[in-house]
Amino acid sequence: MSKHKLRIIPLGGLGEIGKNMMAMEYGNDIIVIDAGLMFPSEETPGVDLLIPDISYLLERKQNLRGIVITHGHEDHIGALPYVLSRLASPVYATRFARELILVELKQRGVKTDAKLNLVGPGSRIQLGSFTVEFFSVCHSIPDCVGLIIHTPQGIVVHSGDFKVDHTPVICEATSFNQLASLGAKGVLLLLSDSTYVELPGYTPSEGVVSDTLDRIVSQAKGRVIVTTFASLISRVQQVFDVAVKNGRRVFIIGRSMKEIATMALKTGYLTAPPGTICSFDELKTLPHNRVIVLSTGSQGEPPSALVRMANRDPKSRVQIVPGDTVVLSAPPIPGNAPLVSRTTDRLFRQGADVIYSKLAQVHVHGHASQEELKLLLSMVKPKFFVPIHGEYRHLVLHANLARSMGVPKDNAFVLENGDVLELGQDSGKVVEKIRAGVVYVSGLIAGELDESVLRDRRSLSRDGVVVVTIALDSGNGKLAGKPHIVTRGFVDAGEEQVLVEKGQDVVLAALDHDRRRLTDPGFVDARARESLSKFLYERIHRRPIIIPVVVEVGKT
Amino acid sequence: MSKHKLRIIPLGGLGEIGKNMMAMEYGNDIIVIDAGLMFPSEETPGVDLLIPDISYLLERKQNLRGIVITHGHEDHIGALPYVLSRLASPVYATRFARELILVELKQRGVKTDAKLNLVGPGSRIQLGSFTVEFFSVCHSIPDCVGLIIHTPQGIVVHSGDFKVDHTPVICEATSFNQLASLGAKGVLLLLSDSTYVELPGYTPSEGVVSDTLDRIVSQAKGRVIVTTFASLISRVQQVFDVAVKNGRRVFIIGRSMKEIATMALKTGYLTAPPGTICSFDELKTLPHNRVIVLSTGSQGEPPSALVRMANRDPKSRVQIVPGDTVVLSAPPIPGNAPLVSRTTDRLFRQGADVIYSKLAQVHVHGHASQEELKLLLSMVKPKFFVPIHGEYRHLVLHANLARSMGVPKDNAFVLENGDVLELGQDSGKVVEKIRAGVVYVSGLIAGELDESVLRDRRSLSRDGVVVVTIALDSGNGKLAGKPHIVTRGFVDAGEEQVLVEKGQDVVLAALDHDRRRLTDPGFVDARARESLSKFLYERIHRRPIIIPVVVEVGKT
Repeated sequence: MSKHKLRIIPLGGLGEIGKNMMAMEYGNDIIVIDAGLMFPSEETPGVDLLIPDISYLLERKQNLRGIVITHGHEDHIGALPYVLSRLASPVYATRFARELILVELKQRGVKTDAKLNLVGPGSRIQLGSFTVEFFSVCHSIPDCVGLIIHTPQGIVVHSGDFKVDHTPVICEATSFNQLASLGAKGVLLLLSDSTYVELPGYTPSEGVVSDTLDRIVSQAKGRVIVTTFASLISRVQQVFDVAVKNGRRVFIIGRSMKEIATMALKTGYLTAPPGTICSFDELKTLPHNRVIVLSTGSQGEPPSALVRMANRDPKSRVQIVPGDTVVLSAPPIPGNAPLVSRTTDRLFRQGADVIYSKLAQVHVHGHASQEELKLLLSMVKPKFFVPIHGEYRHLVLHANLARSMGVPKDNAFVLENGDVLELGQDSGKVVEKIRAGVVYVSGLIAGELDESVLRDRRSLSRDGVVVVTIALDSGNGKLAGKPHIVTRGFVDAGEEQVLVEKGQDVVLAALDHDRRRLTDPGFVDARARESLSKFLYERIHRRPIIIPVVVEVGKT
Repeated sequence: MSKHKLRIIPLGGLGEIGKNMMAMEYGNDIIVIDAGLMFPSEETPGVDLLIPDISYLLERKQNLRGIVITHGHEDHIGALPYVLSRLASPVYATRFARELILVELKQRGVKTDAKLNLVGPGSRIQLGSFTVEFFSVCHSIPDCVGLIIHTPQGIVVHSGDFKVDHTPVICEATSFNQLASLGAKGVLLLLSDSTYVELPGYTPSEGVVSDTLDRIVSQAKGRVIVTTFASLISRVQQVFDVAVKNGRRVFIIGRSMKEIATMALKTGYLTAPPGTICSFDELKTLPHNRVIVLSTGSQGEPPSALVRMANRDPKSRVQIVPGDTVVLSAPPIPGNAPLVSRTTDRLFRQGADVIYSKLAQVHVHGHASQEELKLLLSMVKPKFFVPIHGEYRHLVLHANLARSMGVPKDNAFVLENGDVLELGQDSGKVVEKIRAGVVYVSGLIAGELDESVLRDRRSLSRDGVVVVTIALDSGNGKLAGKPHIVTRGFVDAGEEQVLVEKGQDVVLAALDHDRRRLTDPGFVDARARESLSKFLYERIHRRPIIIPVVVEVGKT
């Protein structure tokens, strides 16, 4: 029997989409799988991105044997610049993921001593008492892998982000032979992607999109402008292929699209016959029905190329004209739906014909649906099951799915970030909860942003700010004049004037009420705040943030 | 030939979902169709609701013959409290809509002299040179109507919000006989609901949901908690019916659900055998498998009954226990998706089994899909077509659909709010753009909220506020001490301290640079703002709102 127990510790990505990170611990050995970021929502105003709290790892630096990356999406690699600037752990990634990690590190200006090791399907690495094997999975970016982790206690399979695509455009089909042989050996634990567990059936193949794009392009009388995620190389390849087939040339617009396409062409992930891509000068002379424009902006992001077209930005190199067809070949990430909706409307206003998911199958996603999840479960036949990558409801539904496939009820664990699951030979148990959560990255500051700052921002955004200045004569402890009020983001100018005047009187009266204590700035501050807050709530039912400024006059 | 031309003037609801309002003008007669509100988004922080700008009507009060209401949803009646407090126009509404208007007026504390007239399918009213007939349509609230408006220039058909439901649960099926006979007479203009023009095929019947609910309730071993829109009376009726069929009693929780159900039972819109509804005392003694709880909270609204259950609020009368089944029988309105998602996850965390649209057909919507829209077009055979109710893209797609059904290309108009469409016998033209837009209602203030206030709020929510106080000695025009800085919603306490200290020095240095002008508070204000703004942007790439407070000392 083994001396230690295997510990599974999710640090991110459970109960949320994004920010994927998991630690696996045995004795004095820790390995980490993925280190992703999450994008902010309206709940976190002014935050640029969110990354996992790695306190647990920082306290056990000496035990960390390596960070293993399943693929190059930002929700799996985006925290690396921050993690590696604190922990010089070796990283193991496939070729395409490694290229993207290098881009991230450069963009964030992080220099690190951490070694970025290249691995691939079939690789086998030893990390302390863990041996990690890699198998190819198909997702929506090249070079995705799942992991077979041999631990002293048994085999752990980690699915990575995957779907089963028998006609993939670029990535290798998910490799079943490696997996199927494991089922016979006995697998201790399966960790599997839950993102699309709500969908019955199978996820359609990426190949489906080729047909739709071909139909759209062959029927379009003018330009076709396609937008998608820059990292969705398979879609970019489809656009190249459709262009070649229809005798059109491709103009690429938008920084990230250009960067990633250039990198992918150089490294062979993208292929295109010479002359497929055209320059801006060439674009100007080409007839519109000989052109496909490949653009950033699928999320309606304000500074992106497509949004600049939609806004008729005079500096945009491409201006929309009637006859243009715009294809939104990506779904809006949930929080971005309003931005995408507004961009779509603006493109229509300019006379473009816009084609999006509701109107044609111009996108398929990269995660397994229920039947594919069942296929994996039935091949691997794990003793224990932990659903990963998903909101809490996805994890519950996936655990139920595993139970319906024969995993014993008590062997399927719905974990949350920070839970420590300890696995014995026949049973598992959450034995403790470690510190895990989120670190807010705001502007150039990569550190924790207090919840209190975010609370203030939410307040400010609802009701604005009211600054009340009170001058005290420090000589005699009397008010040196009437309180003075200024506001921002509060109410309309007309309404403000009335409220400010009355508010000044209210504060004056409140302070006058207890003149003896006017020598105490703390008292003046509190009294001004309370009286003004009460007055404004009674008058207009709003609660702006009130900042009293108490100035002592005659104390130079 | 008629002396005047018919003018169609959308005041709201075109290029946006909600806030529906349209004026129709002929000579000195104006009628208005609907007067709805819109709920705010993250674009309008702190705004409680948005209503149409009615300046055009206020300037022509004497010409307004009446406001005709198609149904009682808030996006069609919600602006009435504000409109009627400014314009004492008679209102014409069906019985259920009228009940809801009375509730709205009471809730907003509006007393009005406007007469609320009752109309119904088959009614015919004369409003100046317009004769308005009503026909029943099926939507998702009782008593919905479409309008047949006889104008001196021809017949106008307004669809209201509609779907074609041959097995409706409560509302009357959409009335085709009145419409079909019009096609032969010749219809000048059709105005038709565009909300679901993106969907091919037919919208499923409300009857489908009955089967799903019955299946869920009959299989549930514990309580079933159903949430939906309080105004979705047909769904409430389905819940009652399923309860009776399965030998369960219904406990209603949440203010709006109780109010509307009570009103609907009293007025006969809802029917239930005696004893269907149970009191809180009865609830406490009933076994869980004999109970259905009908709750507010389908949008994850923080103070609603369901959210209080999800949050384990100790004051909630119903506490979730494992074995409970929660049915979300309503879709999240787009902006509410994150709230609904969080509520769902919390309900799962407490052990409930949650069933929502992705998992079973527990909701169908109330708007026509493409085939139904085509049916209406083919029955009415209008000369002119104006798509209404929808984002800009919906209007464009609906206009294209009408063209594909034989409406001449130039006779289908995609209008925006404020466009004035003048119709001649054979052609129509947008002849002017009148003032139309949005009035923000915030707190108790029903007036216009400047865009500048909203801009400030958005800034504040991103980067917070920095107040810098500068005391000037008015006697000698010198600084009376070091500038003092306080912040809210800006950065973390630790980071703040450093920035505040340096910031104070920066402002001091900037002012010291030009001492002669320190007697000018305007100069001091601008200089402090600029220098601090520049410093903070350079240091941390943020742009908080900076409020300088200049206090003159020695000037009591």
